[in-house]
Parts: sequence; C-alpha cells; structure tokens
Amino acid sequence: MPAAPLVVQKFGGSSLADADRIRRVARRIARERAAGSDLVVVVSAMGDTTDELLGLAAAITETPDERELDMLLATGEHQSATLLSMALHALGVGAISLSGPQAGITTDGRYGRARIASIDPARVRTEVEAGKVVIVAGFQGRAGSGDAHAADITTLGRGGSDTTAVALAARLDADRCQIFTDVRGIYTADPRLVADARQLSVIGYEEMLELAHQGAQVMQTRAVELGWVNGVVIEVLSSFEDAPGTLIKEDPLVEQRNKVRGLAHDRNVAKVTIVAVPDRPGIARSLFDPLAEAGVNVDMIVQNVGHGGETDMSFTVPQAELGKAKKTLESVVRELGAREMTTDASVAKVSIVGAGLHNAPGYAARMFGTLADAGVNIEMISTSEVRITCMIAEDALETALRALHDAFELERPESAAVEAGSGVAAGAAATATRESASR
Amino acid sequence: MPAAPLVVQKFGGSSLADADRIRRVARRIARERAAGSDLVVVVSAMGDTTDELLGLAAAITETPDERELDMLLATGEHQSATLLSMALHALGVGAISLSGPQAGITTDGRYGRARIASIDPARVRTEVEAGKVVIVAGFQGRAGSGDAHAADITTLGRGGSDTTAVALAARLDADRCQIFTDVRGIYTADPRLVADARQLSVIGYEEMLELAHQGAQVMQTRAVELGWVNGVVIEVLSSFEDAPGTLIKEDPLVEQRNKVRGLAHDRNVAKVTIVAVPDRPGIARSLFDPLAEAGVNVDMIVQNVGHGGETDMSFTVPQAELGKAKKTLESVVRELGAREMTTDASVAKVSIVGAGLHNAPGYAARMFGTLADAGVNIEMISTSEVRITCMIAEDALETALRALHDAFELERPESAAVEAGSGVAAGAAATATRESASR
Repeated sequence: MPAAPLVVQKFGGSSLADADRIRRVARRIARERAAGSDLVVVVSAMGDTTDELLGLAAAITETPDERELDMLLATGEHQSATLLSMALHALGVGAISLSGPQAGITTDGRYGRARIASIDPARVRTEVEAGKVVIVAGFQGRAGSGDAHAADITTLGRGGSDTTAVALAARLDADRCQIFTDVRGIYTADPRLVADARQLSVIGYEEMLELAHQGAQVMQTRAVELGWVNGVVIEVLSSFEDAPGTLIKEDPLVEQRNKVRGLAHDRNVAKVTIVAVPDRPGIARSLFDPLAEAGVNVDMIVQNVGHGGETDMSFTVPQAELGKAKKTLESVVRELGAREMTTDASVAKVSIVGAGLHNAPGYAARMFGTLADAGVNIEMISTSEVRITCMIAEDALETALRALHDAFELERPESAAVEAGSGVAAGAAATATRESASR
Repeated sequence: MPAAPLVVQKFGGSSLADADRIRRVARRIARERAAGSDLVVVVSAMGDTTDELLGLAAAITETPDERELDMLLATGEHQSATLLSMALHALGVGAISLSGPQAGITTDGRYGRARIASIDPARVRTEVEAGKVVIVAGFQGRAGSGDAHAADITTLGRGGSDTTAVALAARLDADRCQIFTDVRGIYTADPRLVADARQLSVIGYEEMLELAHQGAQVMQTRAVELGWVNGVVIEVLSSFEDAPGTLIKEDPLVEQRNKVRGLAHDRNVAKVTIVAVPDRPGIARSLFDPLAEAGVNVDMIVQNVGHGGETDMSFTVPQAELGKAKKTLESVVRELGAREMTTDASVAKVSIVGAGLHNAPGYAARMFGTLADAGVNIEMISTSEVRITCMIAEDALETALRALHDAFELERPESAAVEAGSGVAAGAAATATRESASR
C-alpha cells in the first residue's frame, strides 16, 4: 500500500478569527483528511490577537522585556491550535495540538526574531502515524537544545507561521505545502487598487521574494527564501473559497519569459533626508551604523552627486520606525555638520517585478515614462535583479499602479514578453533622486 | 549574613484584571522586595480570561477535548505571568516568569482536575538565588515525569492557583504564604450581605475548610487542605489596600473557644428529589454511581424515613451541573420505579461554622430557632464536625444571614463562647428534610 500523501497546511489569523471560521477551517481539513491525506496544520493566532497582546504589553511598559514578550505572544498560537484541534475532535477527526517546542522546533534563541535552527520531527511523525491531524502552533520554537523543561519560548517575528509551515514541509519531506490566506493567490497588483489585476498561476521564488519584500503582504519573505533553498513548492490559496491558488516554485521559464510579472506597493514607508552633509568618506557609516544598532530597518538609500563639498543623503524606513530613526540621528546630524534632517511620511513605494528586468533597460524606461505620462513624480529609485522600485507621493499611488498595470499589459493572461524600449539604464537610475521621470 | 526571608505571594484574577492593576501589583511586590524579602509570586489569569477562554471553547464544541482545553486555559496564566514580569522589569526589579512546567510542577496527569504530584524546586531556587522575583503561572503543571519536551500541560481546576501557591510555599519552606484577593480577609459573613460582618484575625484550617466548602469563595478548599497537611501558615489579604489580613493556621485555642466563627452561604446550588422510590437496599448506589461517573458533584444527601415501602431521596448539586444530573438520572429513575424526579434551582445553603459545634447540640437548636423566628423555612439539613448547614429558599438568604449573624453575636470581637441551649441534636438533624425549624 503506498503511503498517504503528506500535506502541510498553514492558516493565518484572518482564517481563524472567530469560532465560526475555526469550524470552517476544521471542515476543510476534515475533507482533505477524508480524501486520504496525512496532515500537519500550522496556525497563526486568531484575528488580531497578536496586536491585542502587544497592546497589553505596551500598556504595561514602553520597553517590554523581550523574553517575557515572546512567552506572551506565543500564547496566541497555543490558543488557536487548541481550538482548531477541538473543532476537529467535534467532527470526529483525530487531532492533537502541539506548541512549537512540543513539535520539536528549536531556534537560535534570539527573542522576537528567532530563526529556526533545527526540527526534531519525531513527535510530529509519531502523531501522524497514529492517524492524527497534527496542529502546530506557528511563529515559535524553543531556545536552544538544553533541558526542554526549562527552555524558553522564542518567536520568529511577524508572519513567522509561514516560516514554520515551510520549514516543517521541508523537514517532513511533505508532498505539498499550502498557505491559506484571505486572498486567492498572488496577483499582478493589489486587486483592491487595480480593478483588472489578474491572479498568477505560477511565480518564481525570486520574483515572489521581491513582491513580498516590496509590500505584497501575502507571505513572509523568510518563508519564501526557506522554500527556495529547500525546493519546497508552496501554494498560496484562499481559505474562504475552493479555487486554485498560485504556485511558488522554481520556474524554468523564468529566463525565457523575461517580462514584468507583477506590481508591488508599500505605504508603510517614510523618507528621511540629511540635507547638505559634508561630502567625505565615512558619512554613510556614521549614519547607518547607529540606525542598525537601534534596530531601524533602512531600505532604499540614495546619495546625490556632491557639489560644493556637500551632498544630500536620502533613505527610507518603515513608518513605525521613523520616530526612532529621528531620535537616533539627531546628535549624529549635528556631529556631521549637516544643515538639517527632513522627513516625509506621506510617500509610498511602487515596484515592477519580473525575472530578467535587470538585463533589459527598456523596462526602466517604460516604467519612468508611464509614471511621467500619468503625472506622477518620482522621488527616489532603486533596483535589484528582478525589481525596479520608485518612491512617489502616497496620494499618487493608485494612479501609478493603474497606469503601470496597463502599460505592462498585466491584465493579459500569459501575454508575450514586452519588448525593451530605450531610455535610462537601471544602473544609473538606482542613484537618481527627486528626478522627474520625464527628464 | 542571615538568609532573606522567602515569601510566596499569590494574586488572583481581579487583582490582575488590567494593565493598571498589574502595575499596582508590581509596585506592591517591589516594596516587599525592597524591604529585603526573596519572592515567589503565583498568578491567576487576568480578570475573566478563563471564562472567556471557556466561552471560546464552548462556541467551538459542546464537549471540548480535555487535553486541548487544559492547554488552552493554561495560556491565561502564561499571559498574566509575563505581563507582571514586564511590569517589574519596568520598575527596575529583576524578574522572570515561569510556566507551571518550567517551575518544576508535575501533576498526576488528570486533565482539568489534576493534583500536584511533586515539585522540583531547582529552577525556582536558581532564579531566586540570582536575585530575581520568580513569577509562576498558577493553576497548572506538566503531566507525568517523562520527556518534558513532549509533556502535556494539565490544569488544577478552578482556583488552582491557590493550590500552586501553598504547594510552592510548602516545598520551598517559605517563611510566609500570602493570598492576595479582592477582600481584606475572612469575615464572619459576606460583608455585602451582612452590614456588621467582622473580619477575623485568625481562623483554624478546619473552620476555613468548611467556610470555603460552603461557599465562601475566598480560597480553594484544596489549598487549605494542603496548607493544613504541610503546616503552611496562610495569610489572606487585600491586594487593593495595605491592611492586615486573616491568618489561616493551626489554632491551639480552637477547642477551648468552642463557638461559631462565621457564616457561609452558597447560591450556586440546586436540589433534586426522587419522589416515592421503592425503599430497598442499593437505591443510593443506583443513583449516585451514575452521577459520579458523569462527574456530577453531589453535596447534601437526605433520605426520608420510608413508609409504605417507599421513600423520598433528596440531594444537592451545583446549579451548573443540574442539567447533567437530570439527564443522567432520567433512565435510572424509570428503572427504579420511582414516581418522579423534581428539581429546584431557587434554593441556597447557609452554614454556621466553628470548631466544636458537633459536641454542643445547643448550636443546632439556636440556628433552627433563629431561622424559625425569622420566618425562614428549612428544607434540608446537614452537619459536619465543625459546621451545620441548612438549605433554604434562595430569596430568604439575606434574611437568614442577618438573623444568624445577630443570634451568634458575630459582630462582637472575640466575644465569649455562646452557651449551648437545648434542642435538636445535630446528629438527628442531619437526616431531617423539609422540616420547619419551628417544629
């Protein structure tokens, strides 16, 4: 008798937001089980539980102890795991919930942003072999490999349940890894903003990484990386309807396709500019070392060509970290002798993503030209192998997304590769700032 | 240098109901710490968290799997423990939260009503010696002594945090064990119902057990028993004010005092009567075996003197278990050939408690006479070594409490022993039912 296929499924917080949704997820799992699959199910905390727990901690103290915070946050996933297991029991489906430590997940012990160090799959395998659906609390593991009795719980950072699911799928050599969310899959653009956005049936790991990193919140980037490294085929699909999702996998057609696959955007961004800073070696380090120490995530960095011995330095940070960034840099700006520091939180990033963009400068030209024609001013530009990102005013975001979606014909299924036009090379564009795309 | 005194403190849910109260508790702990004590602090879940979690489980399924339910409920205490630890950190007080398993508490593995089997105090001692306030999640332990990694969490039943605190105090040989609640201590009667109720400075274990068992909700009876067996002096006091509480301890004066110490009452009770059941051996077992199997807690049991080969059997159950009791007994009543089963949930129990009552029949007479004079009808009576309990109509409860409080002069501090009057002996009274006290 051939072994049953092993499927790892992950359900996010919105899929488990209340008792009704939990029972709906249980019915879906029961159907999959009845169809003959062995199942390991990873869950996030219910709905807004994590934010509520963070709010409680914030009401206690501005700087919660990180060990205690991890122990606190981990309870959210314990709760949803036990409730889903109860719902399965109620359907007559054998199930057992396991905390991250109980599931054998060991981390490197960094509170709040732990990485999975290893997985001992013995307990999970035993329960699966006993015919049970194993519900694993996502987002967590145990710090280190010492006495498990005394071990502390660590959390994997926001969206860490995706990572738990992909890591378990890799370790268990699962046949499928399904990430259930509140959307049907990966789209060419956010369908709430672009009416004719189209769902992709397949996307490569690298393209997905850039989409995720640039603000498409469907999956955590680390989970995609982990899938890439381990060759785990990941399916993103809706927990609310029965419809095929999007497969994230090694795509042999990527190099041939050579086109824009989708748009990403991110409103949660703020721009910091250090104006008229003396242009000498080491300036960048003086700014970015303290920010790194303060835990501020710097993304786009642009330094203008210096003139008169002075230069302007601009970079972006997540909006939530803007206050910390300003506080950190106040004294540095004085020490450097810069004229001033300006900040702007009413900005957004818009990106085109597709394998091979880097080798086809025509895409950059088309992007900049499209934005110019739509009257959207570009404030900063950055590029990667598979992505070109422009920072624009936040209130121009929807206009920009619709114009780009049209220009790259993203509404057309499997459309032919867009031919490269002429224009600004991506390499040059990466250091431009406050430059109108029409120039 | 003499060792610092070790104090075990327990804070209940109402003392930890929100962030402000948690910070208030933290300040109290910080003061005790500054005064030089080593501290182990046991916490319940915040406010109504346990009820909310039970509600969630009930919304999922009528019969939650007991293993999953214990794992779910245990998260409530994890949360309050981590938040209190954060609040102490914010005050500059070193602290660490430990789950029940992390604190070395092993149980007998019965989900939902586990008993503490043993405590390995190594981790707690290590943290205390490192100068930390150790916050232990109450109400829980790990099932069995196997691999802690894979061990399940068990809960100790309602109010189990009191038991955690007393057990830790015993195992750690603590100098003090303080139970902080939302009342100032043990009173001669519920001060919300009896205006001149007076706080007791000392009460014996046995008296406290009867008070707790008969509805005084200040402490869990198991915790009192555990304190009694281990000779732990327990102080019950308010977490909201700085005032001396009530000491529960072996009281050498108990035998001499020989008086009523306080009144207890319980509204959460329902009466079941099996009417006209054939009077033959084994009837009681036929009724109470199935109830025990169904997990229904039967308290007072009264069997009328039979006549005509038939008898009436009455007993009380907690109101919440009435439905289960009826369902369990329906077929039994038919099989026994009883006429019918009647139930009444609008009843209450009122008790007088004091060491030596059993040997002084005058107390029973005075109790029954007082209730008769107040126009309160007695439906059932039961007694123990240190207690006489009457079941009455629920709407007569306040009248009964006030009349008894006056009659036994409980408002008078350290009043002289009430002399025994004449009247019904407690032994006889224990089998009376539906008998007016005036007869």
